Amino acid sequence: MAKYLGIDVGATWTRAILVDEGGSVLSRAKIRTGVSPVAEIAEVVAGWDFDAVGVGSIGPMDLKTGVVVNSPNSPSRRFPLVEPLKKFKRPVVVANDCVAAVWGEYVFKYHVDNMAYLTLSTGVGVGAIVNGVLLLGKDGNAHELGHAVIDFKSPRRCGCGGLGHFEAFVGGANMPSFYQEVAGEGPLLPEEIFKRAREGYRKAVEFLDVWLDALAAGVATILAAYDPELLIVGGSIALNNWDIVGRELPKRLVKYLGVRGAEIRPASFGDDEVAIGAAALAYKTPETLKKFGYPR
Amino acid sequence: MAKYLGIDVGATWTRAILVDEGGSVLSRAKIRTGVSPVAEIAEVVAGWDFDAVGVGSIGPMDLKTGVVVNSPNSPSRRFPLVEPLKKFKRPVVVANDCVAAVWGEYVFKYHVDNMAYLTLSTGVGVGAIVNGVLLLGKDGNAHELGHAVIDFKSPRRCGCGGLGHFEAFVGGANMPSFYQEVAGEGPLLPEEIFKRAREGYRKAVEFLDVWLDALAAGVATILAAYDPELLIVGGSIALNNWDIVGRELPKRLVKYLGVRGAEIRPASFGDDEVAIGAAALAYKTPETLKKFGYPR
Repeated sequence: MAKYLGIDVGATWTRAILVDEGGSVLSRAKIRTGVSPVAEIAEVVAGWDFDAVGVGSIGPMDLKTGVVVNSPNSPSRRFPLVEPLKKFKRPVVVANDCVAAVWGEYVFKYHVDNMAYLTLSTGVGVGAIVNGVLLLGKDGNAHELGHAVIDFKSPRRCGCGGLGHFEAFVGGANMPSFYQEVAGEGPLLPEEIFKRAREGYRKAVEFLDVWLDALAAGVATILAAYDPELLIVGGSIALNNWDIVGRELPKRLVKYLGVRGAEIRPASFGDDEVAIGAAALAYKTPETLKKFGYPR
Repeated sequence: MAKYLGIDVGATWTRAILVDEGGSVLSRAKIRTGVSPVAEIAEVVAGWDFDAVGVGSIGPMDLKTGVVVNSPNSPSRRFPLVEPLKKFKRPVVVANDCVAAVWGEYVFKYHVDNMAYLTLSTGVGVGAIVNGVLLLGKDGNAHELGHAVIDFKSPRRCGCGGLGHFEAFVGGANMPSFYQEVAGEGPLLPEEIFKRAREGYRKAVEFLDVWLDALAAGVATILAAYDPELLIVGGSIALNNWDIVGRELPKRLVKYLGVRGAEIRPASFGDDEVAIGAAALAYKTPETLKKFGYPR
């Protein structure tokens, strides 16, 4: 049975896993994300035996050249994804982390032609499969609804520079300042906000009331854009607080939805979510990525 | 050379055109939209000779059964699209009007794999082609970004019932009440607002300043969702006021964009836009519509 290497390049950690054709994890490695994370993890897995390798990475990314170009949260803003893997003389496939994640859920678990993935972590990212096609668009950005405008009058600026973006309200890196704006105190880190809200602290409860509406508004926009049957939600903010997010999101969606909704489920693979997706890209390379010249 | 019948079912007018394989119009017919518009226009074109027929219609539509199910602005809320055409014993293809329009611009003019269409008329509608695939999704709604949420705190309710929708701010049917809210006078019809703004009437100028930002926010969300190379903008509100919309939209997009932009052009076929698109659906039926059992 063939084996596939999946690499997840995150802002803080870079992970590698070896999986078989069923998606079962055979080996795992994890390093702090350095200045050239793919080159660094390639050293760690040099002895592993695999038939192809996939990479799911934070962006923004130039998919045509296989290089991350302006990453705001990692040690270096620019690093190669494809080049450092050529030494293995195996096919290489790369994509955005959320694009990889939705593909992993599609290939190794759900096989549903219309599904989307949303991550709520430092940032907000989306991946989408519509009518069995993994959406990429002209530059590889046909999934970037973390940059949907959910408040066109708001002065809140996203990390990308855009005004009123979904990420500017709901992303983990922006929650402290959003809490300060709404509660008039803080800033507070996301875990602290959720903790206090569970304890009934009024300002935290009131803040989450607004935050959950912003989340529902962004999700309603994702459903209007892609009409999925299934929405998978991952990322630390969502998974660590699924007791609140899982309960409130479907309820609050009703007032914003303009189309029939979707089933909402938490991500299936925990910390391996993006690495499994990357391995799935190597195992079954999507047609749309072939249009960008992958595998290389 | 084969000939194709294209039918455009609008809230007010139902149009039919006969085109050749180059998209040239050979004949035209137009009737007021009645209680069963496709059955009524089928009578008018009974003598026409064609090889297949396409229909682009207002929605919402149940694409699986080929029936419009809850149309808010036409004489009847429910009417069949496929059934009345079976008597011609020719292949029948149906889709949402904006889905048809983007397909017509793709087949008969631009042939660009990543393009989207936006109509600004009574309502706000979108159609999208991503990586050469016409997006439909699970129900045929994977393009409904007229129902993107662009102000999650707003009490403005869209015709579909959703809060803070793009259409609730920018659609022609909602501009009078939005003008009243912003200017504290009126309501005024769209043509009157644009006319007064051209004449320098302060309240109309101030209203359009807000309206154009709402438009730019919705377009930024469309570009983030589909990453098109080209955005075609049609509909009476846009085309009758392209001097203002064409000039202002690119400028105002800059503050909202989170991804590389797109070229923006006005629709190519004027009043025939949707009918030409419908004929294109019959001439070259998209793979995703075949998944819904078309042509029938």
